[in-house]
Amino acid sequence: MARIHNFNAGPAALPLEVIEQAQAELPDYNGLGMSVMELSHRSKEFQAVADGAEAGLRRLMRIPDGYDVLFLQGGASLQFAMVPMNLRRPGKSADYIDTGSWANRALKEAQVTGAVNVAWSGKADNYTRIPKESELRLSPDAEYVHLCSNETIGGIRWTQFPSVSTPLVVDMSSDILSREIDIARFDMAYAGAQKNLGPSGLAVVIMKKELAARAPEDTPIFFRYSTHAKDKSLYNTPNTWAIYLLDLTCKWVEAKGGVAAMEQANDKKAAVLYGVLDASDFWRSPVEVESRSTMNVVWRLGSEELEARFVSEAKQAGMVGLKGHRSVGGIRASIYNAVTLESVEALAAFMKDFEKKNG
Amino acid sequence: MARIHNFNAGPAALPLEVIEQAQAELPDYNGLGMSVMELSHRSKEFQAVADGAEAGLRRLMRIPDGYDVLFLQGGASLQFAMVPMNLRRPGKSADYIDTGSWANRALKEAQVTGAVNVAWSGKADNYTRIPKESELRLSPDAEYVHLCSNETIGGIRWTQFPSVSTPLVVDMSSDILSREIDIARFDMAYAGAQKNLGPSGLAVVIMKKELAARAPEDTPIFFRYSTHAKDKSLYNTPNTWAIYLLDLTCKWVEAKGGVAAMEQANDKKAAVLYGVLDASDFWRSPVEVESRSTMNVVWRLGSEELEARFVSEAKQAGMVGLKGHRSVGGIRASIYNAVTLESVEALAAFMKDFEKKNG
Repeated sequence: MARIHNFNAGPAALPLEVIEQAQAELPDYNGLGMSVMELSHRSKEFQAVADGAEAGLRRLMRIPDGYDVLFLQGGASLQFAMVPMNLRRPGKSADYIDTGSWANRALKEAQVTGAVNVAWSGKADNYTRIPKESELRLSPDAEYVHLCSNETIGGIRWTQFPSVSTPLVVDMSSDILSREIDIARFDMAYAGAQKNLGPSGLAVVIMKKELAARAPEDTPIFFRYSTHAKDKSLYNTPNTWAIYLLDLTCKWVEAKGGVAAMEQANDKKAAVLYGVLDASDFWRSPVEVESRSTMNVVWRLGSEELEARFVSEAKQAGMVGLKGHRSVGGIRASIYNAVTLESVEALAAFMKDFEKKNG
Repeated sequence: MARIHNFNAGPAALPLEVIEQAQAELPDYNGLGMSVMELSHRSKEFQAVADGAEAGLRRLMRIPDGYDVLFLQGGASLQFAMVPMNLRRPGKSADYIDTGSWANRALKEAQVTGAVNVAWSGKADNYTRIPKESELRLSPDAEYVHLCSNETIGGIRWTQFPSVSTPLVVDMSSDILSREIDIARFDMAYAGAQKNLGPSGLAVVIMKKELAARAPEDTPIFFRYSTHAKDKSLYNTPNTWAIYLLDLTCKWVEAKGGVAAMEQANDKKAAVLYGVLDASDFWRSPVEVESRSTMNVVWRLGSEELEARFVSEAKQAGMVGLKGHRSVGGIRASIYNAVTLESVEALAAFMKDFEKKNG
């Protein structure tokens, strides 16, 4: 079976070892005579899977005891709505840092139900850089500050996170487990699973226990973090298959050396691509160098026609998912943990060859 | 590989053919060099999967063109919150028929955010029957009437649905595709997938297009049906794996002869178990005969100790998931579409044997 070079932005490549184990265990998990998907979510067998996933995340990210780890559904988009419903009390405001499409979507959702202070926006610059801390206009009485650690569409990421006096909430969907981040600097982090954690349909929420209790009383039961924290993510039936794959993925990351090893590998993969981009005017990186993402590398070619040819010929050469997001165009290579250096080197070689033919 | 007799209430047994196909296609779906989980949700390949699932549901349930079919996450529990947020306009009320644990949970969620009229409640009778239409105290000015077509915990189901003049909303989580129901009698139906449609982590919503547009303006974007209807369930990343399994499950139901054939098989399976229960005083069915569910058959034995022994010895005999819900105790056999007649007959034989030894 030939695996393709998969540069999809999410859902994205999964580790081959994880898929192969899932395949082997599909009809009969652990000799139980049924697949993981057919286990009761309240069985001790499934509880062991969920406990394994939580323990794996806690070890890998060094999550302190004072934080809950919740397995919810609805991806980051549900969190965009739940965060303000839970953390911004009536009549209060929250600070949002608008670094790109995802931060902006969180901000827009928060604006529907209450007051928001846009502490900084990169919109005028087409979201090509992360702000300096001195540029932020934070409100001292904000209920929390929200930011997105890595923007998949703009291809930018925070390297230094700001020091703030209010609770700091981070959307970590696209770089969780990809680099060492001190989780204790945040009061809450959340991530859709479909980039570095597993398949789509699962969101991981990591939050200080006292924050989970903050929701106003007229918040629907299902939307209160306290509901899910109290029932240990079993208030309703969770996405058991995705939690199982998260567990396998955490074990895979640990076997590869943990988050530090992932970061090293990701830095190397990103350096290969940025190296090609920087070596010639044939390619143009729209992103400020200090803000470059190591997860999503974006670039432009001389014309949209040339970009379309690049994507099409890359596909014929066994590389998919390279078309930039429809909102911005251009080219994007998403190189999450499960994308191998071999895939990245194949892309770099293809790029050099394409430049030779079209430069 | 020995498949166990799986009577779990949900997540529950899946058709073996579906699991085997999913296993075979896992590392390399359709020669694309990646699994279904690694496809972009915006790729034409995944769109074909989602279109297949929707078309399958539309054919099997004869869903009219004027209805949207949405693939959401969060199970029925998210719908408990979304239904009143979208359909009950400010200052208005909704009718809820309280037939059991699930109808009650929907009702409780609706009470958090507005006015509810309990049109009937079976709580005083321990939820052992479905009301007659004449017993319902419906309000003429309700925004909608909500009911649950089958209660998995109480083991009761509606056979005749009431005629109402306001929009009728049904939680069909545990009997969708299990029997012929005229969907055109309802304005909205929803179902968590983990009983008759596939794995957990997916909810199917079927609703009249005009209802999807009803949400008040201060409803968070993510919670508006119109958001998901407009973007054809791609406002955010859906649970692609579960939609794929839904597609396979619909194809499996069609290959078996469609919903009518499922109903016939389910009636037969249920008759086998109720036959055993009715043949002796050793077993006690707490449910009114006319309200008996064909999906969840519940019963009691002479003592809790005997019930515990039944569950334990059944497990040793290769039958799992028979312990009644923790809120009510007793025994429960969930016999959804994917549970074979062979499994049910094995259980019936075990019951007769158990009675002989302990009667």
